[in-house]
Amino acid sequence: MSGMYEGAIQDLIDALGRLPGIGPKSAQRIAFHILQSDSEVASALVDSIRVVKERVKFCVLCGNVSEEDECRICRDPRRDNTTICVVEESKDVIAIERTREFRGKYHVLGGAISPIDGIGPEQLRIRELMVRLADAGIVEVILATDPNLEGEATATYLSRLIKPMDIKVSRLASGLPVGGDLEYADEVTLGRAFEGRRDV
Amino acid sequence: MSGMYEGAIQDLIDALGRLPGIGPKSAQRIAFHILQSDSEVASALVDSIRVVKERVKFCVLCGNVSEEDECRICRDPRRDNTTICVVEESKDVIAIERTREFRGKYHVLGGAISPIDGIGPEQLRIRELMVRLADAGIVEVILATDPNLEGEATATYLSRLIKPMDIKVSRLASGLPVGGDLEYADEVTLGRAFEGRRDV
Repeated sequence: MSGMYEGAIQDLIDALGRLPGIGPKSAQRIAFHILQSDSEVASALVDSIRVVKERVKFCVLCGNVSEEDECRICRDPRRDNTTICVVEESKDVIAIERTREFRGKYHVLGGAISPIDGIGPEQLRIRELMVRLADAGIVEVILATDPNLEGEATATYLSRLIKPMDIKVSRLASGLPVGGDLEYADEVTLGRAFEGRRDV
Repeated sequence: MSGMYEGAIQDLIDALGRLPGIGPKSAQRIAFHILQSDSEVASALVDSIRVVKERVKFCVLCGNVSEEDECRICRDPRRDNTTICVVEESKDVIAIERTREFRGKYHVLGGAISPIDGIGPEQLRIRELMVRLADAGIVEVILATDPNLEGEATATYLSRLIKPMDIKVSRLASGLPVGGDLEYADEVTLGRAFEGRRDV
């Protein structure tokens, strides 16, 4: 598709096409949308990109996105300081907050251990987690990394590191998705659901 | 998902989510991509949006996107001035250019007649087309609007308008897609393929 449009519109299509999950067809569609819509649409987008790059940083304590040195959750005095939930990304914090099940603090690793992608423990915010665990009166660490290969490896690595510190370490339950259909569950999930079965 | 992030990042997610074909999940993914990547990624995107809004306009003759008053194709002296291919959108020009089958000029309507969406002939660049047909020595008009309800209606409307001017009016052939499988063709397409069958 390249080079068919004149300069500027092709440059925009190319820039949009480099964003994750946007193929050449949608890049073209979005570029024409921006071109044809009111200039407020374009300036809202431009301004919000600029503001994010200028203002948004990462919380010095937990690594979550924040516009202050410390994020909203770390600053909140009503949150339980004795429990830390360890997640891979800021979006996982949002997902857990939406459940309203957890009232403790978070720690965002910035990814998961993945030797293929060159991500070892040093590339993640694990040292910062250890500092937090050494300092405060932490009673429990909940490992909420993704239930996939990299997430499991990261959880195993962390639990070996944390258990000797005499802190309770837990992992989110694996099992059947609520509202799902048993026959459509993959065999690993179904196996986990059996393993983790509870008396009723 | 709204209101879960702090100000700036949520504003960017909202702005991205208003673009066509971007749902809340991809808006979030793109926002974090922009946040976490080098500032060159963000500034390339910001600059290309700004340049498009400043520089790209529509060709005064054919309505195609252009950075000059007249677009590249209208300015090209090697293109055949006696044939005009009428399309709905600039992206259709690109699609036809890619075939290298057509060496005439274009006319971009800016859409198709669609009473449900409040688009009648007055909302399209039909008056401009009539001016072009009255002026120059046009021999043939090829109606290349989309092969759907709105495109067919627009083509019918235009052919009624143009035929009395003693100009040949043609429509792109409908039929089986090349490389496709006959059994997967829908019945309308297959019916058209029968109607339009040619002696071999």
